[in-house]
Amino acid sequence: MTTTLSLLNHHLSLPLPYLLATTTEGEDYGKALAVSIALVGLSIFIFSRFFEEIAARIGLPSVLGDLIAGLVIGVSGLQIVMLEGGEINPALSHLIEILANSTPEQVQAVFDVPIPIIVEEYAEFGVVVLLFLIGLESDLKELLKVGFQSASVAIVGVTLPFILGFVGLTFIFHIPALPALFAGAALTATSIGITAKVMQDIGVLKSKEGQIILGAAILDDILGIVILAVVISIVETGEIDVFNAIRLILTAAAFMIAAVAMNRFFGPWFITQLEKLKSPNSRGMGSFILFIFLNFLAGVVGLEPILGAFAAGLILGGTKAREDLIDGVGVLSVIFSTVFFVSIGAKTDLSVLNPAIPANREGLIVAGFLIIVAVVGKVAAGFFAFSQEKINRLGIGTGMIPRGEVGLVFAGLGAATGALPPSIDVGIVLMVIATTFLSPPLLRLVFDTSESPAQPVPSDADGSS
Amino acid sequence: MTTTLSLLNHHLSLPLPYLLATTTEGEDYGKALAVSIALVGLSIFIFSRFFEEIAARIGLPSVLGDLIAGLVIGVSGLQIVMLEGGEINPALSHLIEILANSTPEQVQAVFDVPIPIIVEEYAEFGVVVLLFLIGLESDLKELLKVGFQSASVAIVGVTLPFILGFVGLTFIFHIPALPALFAGAALTATSIGITAKVMQDIGVLKSKEGQIILGAAILDDILGIVILAVVISIVETGEIDVFNAIRLILTAAAFMIAAVAMNRFFGPWFITQLEKLKSPNSRGMGSFILFIFLNFLAGVVGLEPILGAFAAGLILGGTKAREDLIDGVGVLSVIFSTVFFVSIGAKTDLSVLNPAIPANREGLIVAGFLIIVAVVGKVAAGFFAFSQEKINRLGIGTGMIPRGEVGLVFAGLGAATGALPPSIDVGIVLMVIATTFLSPPLLRLVFDTSESPAQPVPSDADGSS
Repeated sequence: MTTTLSLLNHHLSLPLPYLLATTTEGEDYGKALAVSIALVGLSIFIFSRFFEEIAARIGLPSVLGDLIAGLVIGVSGLQIVMLEGGEINPALSHLIEILANSTPEQVQAVFDVPIPIIVEEYAEFGVVVLLFLIGLESDLKELLKVGFQSASVAIVGVTLPFILGFVGLTFIFHIPALPALFAGAALTATSIGITAKVMQDIGVLKSKEGQIILGAAILDDILGIVILAVVISIVETGEIDVFNAIRLILTAAAFMIAAVAMNRFFGPWFITQLEKLKSPNSRGMGSFILFIFLNFLAGVVGLEPILGAFAAGLILGGTKAREDLIDGVGVLSVIFSTVFFVSIGAKTDLSVLNPAIPANREGLIVAGFLIIVAVVGKVAAGFFAFSQEKINRLGIGTGMIPRGEVGLVFAGLGAATGALPPSIDVGIVLMVIATTFLSPPLLRLVFDTSESPAQPVPSDADGSS
Repeated sequence: MTTTLSLLNHHLSLPLPYLLATTTEGEDYGKALAVSIALVGLSIFIFSRFFEEIAARIGLPSVLGDLIAGLVIGVSGLQIVMLEGGEINPALSHLIEILANSTPEQVQAVFDVPIPIIVEEYAEFGVVVLLFLIGLESDLKELLKVGFQSASVAIVGVTLPFILGFVGLTFIFHIPALPALFAGAALTATSIGITAKVMQDIGVLKSKEGQIILGAAILDDILGIVILAVVISIVETGEIDVFNAIRLILTAAAFMIAAVAMNRFFGPWFITQLEKLKSPNSRGMGSFILFIFLNFLAGVVGLEPILGAFAAGLILGGTKAREDLIDGVGVLSVIFSTVFFVSIGAKTDLSVLNPAIPANREGLIVAGFLIIVAVVGKVAAGFFAFSQEKINRLGIGTGMIPRGEVGLVFAGLGAATGALPPSIDVGIVLMVIATTFLSPPLLRLVFDTSESPAQPVPSDADGSS
């Protein structure tokens, strides 16, 4: 919930004249707000649908469509969704003035205070719901089957980009330690959705390589979310306190270990108890309460709520309610995480990378560096897969490249702390876009024209792992 | 969205010291907010689940459990969820101070501004989603089968309580015209869920009486929502302007007629177009966009967004996507309309009815009057059922008694306008509670020990209508 909170703080600390404007206007102001909320909502959902449709037709993941929709309607584009203040599109303002019979000042006041609070609250709900869903979909049983091979890929694939990113930014680009730490962390987590889809299309999802990638992606979500929770807490306090860092790492690790342990016995027991209740929707609502409770618990111990949300998903992901929960949480996710992804795009100010301005060039170089580390770090990790057999190690590494959703969670939470320079925020978003764009063609390349002989057999046959 | 808006106005017009407090505190304030949001959310969902479970075990509808949960945690009870300002429970404040390491002033500031904005926004989303669902579930084809009989029951059942309520409050209790008009309107709409459940339990749902009741309930939702949309607009402007009232009635009627007409051709065509899209969830998200657009359109023409939400449900309720949409919207409704129902209970200040204070006695008498009109008006309507055969007219009227969800939508929107005296707000909530409590036992009585010979045959046999 830090996202919302920081932004709340941010917006509530706007110049008082705006706050006063919002406190004095009455009915007309109310109608301006109603019309504005509806138009912002329509923009978010219509543009995201449009760009998701284009993404689907050219074989790219939906999340990229949402992100681009955000860029188009946000501060870098049409300026309809302005989450960090600033003047909105005059045509939009004019339209609202006509529809709501209000003044330009009223419309601007609406966009300065309540609109960002409301959009950010929905986006915040979207990100925890998304992590709940990712947790539910993480199949811990599948993971055990490919345990060692996946673990080696995941651990190297998390630490290598993290260290390369942090060290490179600190020593080559002289970026301060905290932003460098954060950018390093943002390079860690793979987004498996994209890879899984492409591997399915070319028929290698059930191959040994496919299974190792799937397992490694689950593990590196877990590692990545632990790193994120710890790094964000450090960035928020503004200093690296070694004892605090160790405490946070231990707490986060304990949280995850408890969640994995509870997946086996507590989860099924909890669902059985809920099924004894007589009121309708007890199973779903009981699970939802557990989810809120763990968000809360994570927050109270000083970690990010998303860690709690993900833990709730892991705990309930081994129960017979799993499929129903995935369906239900999926409905929430499809609506609210769209708001989250669009809001990240909307906040991304591409002008900080305008190469015409000399001062921006370093930002561009940093973004380029992040992209290279993101690709190289994961590809290298593929060569650390434990295996006696000959496997397509290049394919495994390539499959780990896309950062997608989890990378965007990093970008969103990082921007919300307000502690990162804009070039790092934008660099992370560009890194997510680039890795997501790159991986489908690269994957097709390394699996189809593979030199490693063990590979291109059409799946299933060697899918026993 | 009027609910939220009025409350936003209300809260943004709080004394400046609070706003200043919220603008100056930084990190600790942020953590106080995060912890407070989580605790308020947990209270809403845990208490509503607890009272829903009790309601289920004694055969009462869930909505009553939510309402009572709201009374228990709101301004009349534990003062955890305080949506209209006021001091929160000291124990809760103390807990948050400890968990978030913050001051009592910070905690109070959090509960004065952002918490009400956020809870009201979710409640507002809950009410439009609920109306979308009610619209989807309104089976217009079933309605046609029992057309005339249901129509006569519905029209009398809407106009009789409306006129009795308005005239009685104006002439007997000398209540001003606007609140009397609103209270009259709140008496109109039947909530069919409760009756349907009881009739199913005692095996008369498929009887002629059951079918007439179901049809009349759909029709009287339509009539009731039109009346609500018009009356709220009138109450908000603060005066009865005949031309404006006629314009609103015609607009609302046109909206509903268009929705019913579009149910047949536009709805199925729209779904077919969505199915041609390649991006995932196109059907659901396209429907969601139509829903937001109609909320927006209703607001722009001066009506309540709920009218648009209900219209969207009617339009899509005749398509092959209906069942999937009901499932998806049901997930949203079970979460967010719970917030809405609990928030109504939380805002209901029962102290205005404390009989120990003489000034309150008129409020109590008004509440009693509303309950009597609510029961008598609907029971009388049962005798207007068109039918040559002998049917259980008393049973039909009794089946129309419960007000439930739609009555609460009235109460919630009415309270949000700020134009009604508290005794009317509370009177409407008590009327909803009383009619909902009364109808299950009354229904069992009139159907089981019925004197009308045509009735107690065990259903199905005469279910051809």
